[in-house]
Amino acid sequence: MRTAQHAQLALLLEVAGTPKPGNVDRERDFDDLRFEHFLAGAVGSCDGLDAAAAGEPVGDSFETAVEGMSQQRGGNAQFGALLLLVPLVRAAATWGLTPDDTVAVVEATTVDDAAGFYRAFEHVDVFVDDPPADAEELDVRRGADAIPAVRERGLTLSDVMELSAPEDGVATEWTNGFPRTFAAAETVSEGDGPVPDRVAAAFLELLAAEPDTMVAKQHGAEVAESVRERAAALRDADRDELETFADELVERGVNPGTTADVAAAATFVALERDGVIP
Amino acid sequence: MRTAQHAQLALLLEVAGTPKPGNVDRERDFDDLRFEHFLAGAVGSCDGLDAAAAGEPVGDSFETAVEGMSQQRGGNAQFGALLLLVPLVRAAATWGLTPDDTVAVVEATTVDDAAGFYRAFEHVDVFVDDPPADAEELDVRRGADAIPAVRERGLTLSDVMELSAPEDGVATEWTNGFPRTFAAAETVSEGDGPVPDRVAAAFLELLAAEPDTMVAKQHGAEVAESVRERAAALRDADRDELETFADELVERGVNPGTTADVAAAATFVALERDGVIP
Repeated sequence: MRTAQHAQLALLLEVAGTPKPGNVDRERDFDDLRFEHFLAGAVGSCDGLDAAAAGEPVGDSFETAVEGMSQQRGGNAQFGALLLLVPLVRAAATWGLTPDDTVAVVEATTVDDAAGFYRAFEHVDVFVDDPPADAEELDVRRGADAIPAVRERGLTLSDVMELSAPEDGVATEWTNGFPRTFAAAETVSEGDGPVPDRVAAAFLELLAAEPDTMVAKQHGAEVAESVRERAAALRDADRDELETFADELVERGVNPGTTADVAAAATFVALERDGVIP
Repeated sequence: MRTAQHAQLALLLEVAGTPKPGNVDRERDFDDLRFEHFLAGAVGSCDGLDAAAAGEPVGDSFETAVEGMSQQRGGNAQFGALLLLVPLVRAAATWGLTPDDTVAVVEATTVDDAAGFYRAFEHVDVFVDDPPADAEELDVRRGADAIPAVRERGLTLSDVMELSAPEDGVATEWTNGFPRTFAAAETVSEGDGPVPDRVAAAFLELLAAEPDTMVAKQHGAEVAESVRERAAALRDADRDELETFADELVERGVNPGTTADVAAAATFVALERDGVIP
């Protein structure tokens, strides 16, 4: 399988892994965001992933991937996952799939890449925090309208990610050599049993280790920390307890989406670098 | 979405539709053939589907799709579905997605296309009947070794399909303008609710209408007819009764795989021709 196909399969294996408390998985839907939206999102994102593998600019590739992902009725299924996957795909297709190579990809991003990132917000509604008072003109919700300010300040996509970290778990991976992604890949690669089960295990480890930044943005830091603690307490729980936790989070609308994004990226590393085959 | 992407998404929506009694679906796996094998199969088949859309020969495109589909550990996930999808993709990408246009695609197949079909059997084990006594040298299980006999007799892929019909439900679609595929597409296109639910409804209608030829090959005509009768009796059943039937067939290893193949093809028609969007 080619690199871009591994990325696409990673998106599919991520959503198939169950239980992934608070997320759409093989057994759970939200009312408006359902399993099939993730299937269509994965299929739709392939042109952007192909572009990243072929050496097209990171920002353009990401925008293309998001535009394609958005061709379904569920809205934002995989924005964060694609934001992690595009530089990983680029690294894999050019130098190698190592933390150092991803740092090189990130450092090579340009102002044009930042513009592509902002344009991606034109295609889908993404839940984000209000920007700091001195950065309102850089608010991603302005989409392409923010690009003149980005250009005026000379911000690369790497710079934009630094502005978003550490409040955003995806941005933190970008600025940091993707440490959680590469660590979680070990769980997927070294686990036993069906690959989706290993993806779910990696998700739970990630959730137990750090508060999910999407939950923090939507429900506050206390809720995010309480979810982390609960996940940590359930480390050795049986399947029934995990299922109960998963059902409860979905009912409450508490969605650790950033953790799922990292799990998808980790799955890509397992497929592409470690040769995991479902 | 491009034509080949619609075909890929159709494969994914088919396996996500539940309950589809006797088949892998969102809620059921066989021991050796699991949900994730269908996900990987759909991703892997994209190069062959792209080739069919781009006008590459039908036989080569099919072989490429099967080779890609087979890059997972479950074995034959989607051989029959791809055999239906490749000519439909070709029709959609060249003339149009109508029964007449698919007949034109079938009639245009060549001896080289037949050779590609035989080579596809080199990539994956497919359950097939013994050939008639006078056609042993054409046994598909011989794979590429049968190609000299195919060439000697001047058989096109259309001819090969006619030899397999009516014992094989996929071949019967080929020789006949894909009547069940186009009829079932109406159910997917005109239904209410989530698309995978409509795919499952189309599957059940198909199963109730004609005995599944895969079940007939594996378990005999009587079992196939009894499954059809049971499906027909459950037309107005509630979900629980359907789930029980689905569990029972999986437990018995009774797999109406040909019906699932037609459901996948019908889903492609709904996406590509009728503009259904999940």
